[in-house]
Amino acid sequence: MDVRRRGRGRRPAAEVRDDILTAAGKLLIDEGMAAFTIERVALEAGASKTTIYKWWRSKGALALDGYFHAVESTLAFPDTGDIEADLSSQVRAFVHLLTETPAGRVIAELAGQAQTDPDLATALRERYTVPRRRLAVEVMERARSRGQLRGDVDFEVVVDQLWGACYHRLLLPAEPLNDQFAVELVRNVLRGIRA
Amino acid sequence: MDVRRRGRGRRPAAEVRDDILTAAGKLLIDEGMAAFTIERVALEAGASKTTIYKWWRSKGALALDGYFHAVESTLAFPDTGDIEADLSSQVRAFVHLLTETPAGRVIAELAGQAQTDPDLATALRERYTVPRRRLAVEVMERARSRGQLRGDVDFEVVVDQLWGACYHRLLLPAEPLNDQFAVELVRNVLRGIRA
Repeated sequence: MDVRRRGRGRRPAAEVRDDILTAAGKLLIDEGMAAFTIERVALEAGASKTTIYKWWRSKGALALDGYFHAVESTLAFPDTGDIEADLSSQVRAFVHLLTETPAGRVIAELAGQAQTDPDLATALRERYTVPRRRLAVEVMERARSRGQLRGDVDFEVVVDQLWGACYHRLLLPAEPLNDQFAVELVRNVLRGIRA
Repeated sequence: MDVRRRGRGRRPAAEVRDDILTAAGKLLIDEGMAAFTIERVALEAGASKTTIYKWWRSKGALALDGYFHAVESTLAFPDTGDIEADLSSQVRAFVHLLTETPAGRVIAELAGQAQTDPDLATALRERYTVPRRRLAVEVMERARSRGQLRGDVDFEVVVDQLWGACYHRLLLPAEPLNDQFAVELVRNVLRGIRA
């Protein structure tokens, strides 16, 4: 009997929560949204459905948190003091995640399903879109306070110019979504917003 | 008996085709993708299902052509010789279409469903995304030949910066998609690409 099983039922809540998120992220990445159920996550995480429903009010909310748990470290936003390098690193890492890992298919499916699933749409907005936007805007505001970006630019619009452009190539594919695209995109955008 | 009914079966193909597209577009706009079936379109257009299947290999292809038929005139790309005014008019008209008419919900549903429906994805790419991108790139190439846009910019990337940014606010909503957004977006983008 391993330590984990012996301790079941008395594991700290934070550990159980982390196991659930890890299981949810892995299930999504491995098998996609079609295979994603609370039952499967409960089974894989060794947690009860009751516990999961205590923390997540819906499958969509759990899926979003699991997705974000899986990709969060990859999407970390560098803030080295050089906004041009930082935006470039972040957008290139994001494009790499979308194209070179199963995460691209997963977020495309989640965003797709959210168009007709109001509950998933709310989870996507609250747990992913809004916090990710906020992070990017904060990084750009710090760059403005260092004098690197123009004073009259609405950074919320720049978020759509950068990451929205990447989502556009992911969700309405036509031209390649790759590193060269990321580099040219950041270059065009920066030329319009640098101080 | 009206002229139309009397003539049924001998109507010119172009007229039948136009009736089918009009009926398809109207059904989509009025009731959305959930209610969209070949049967309903056949009924509304007074055409046979066989005729429809002769021209469209799938429901998705018909939906896309019907959608585009309904919105095409609104999305016409002006080419007055002033690229700044033309991009601004087109993006503002596009945002208006997405937000002030049912077309926004329809294209969001179509794009959403395309994430898990390869047939619809192909129809969306071939019948909507690729031709729309081509139009925009051609307008920008003409502006470059007039000396209005930089020589070293990849206009395919600019397409994603402009229309991709709008789709981002439509499909992953957080900040408002409105005329002010369109105006600031075009201003930021132009500052980075004008000659």
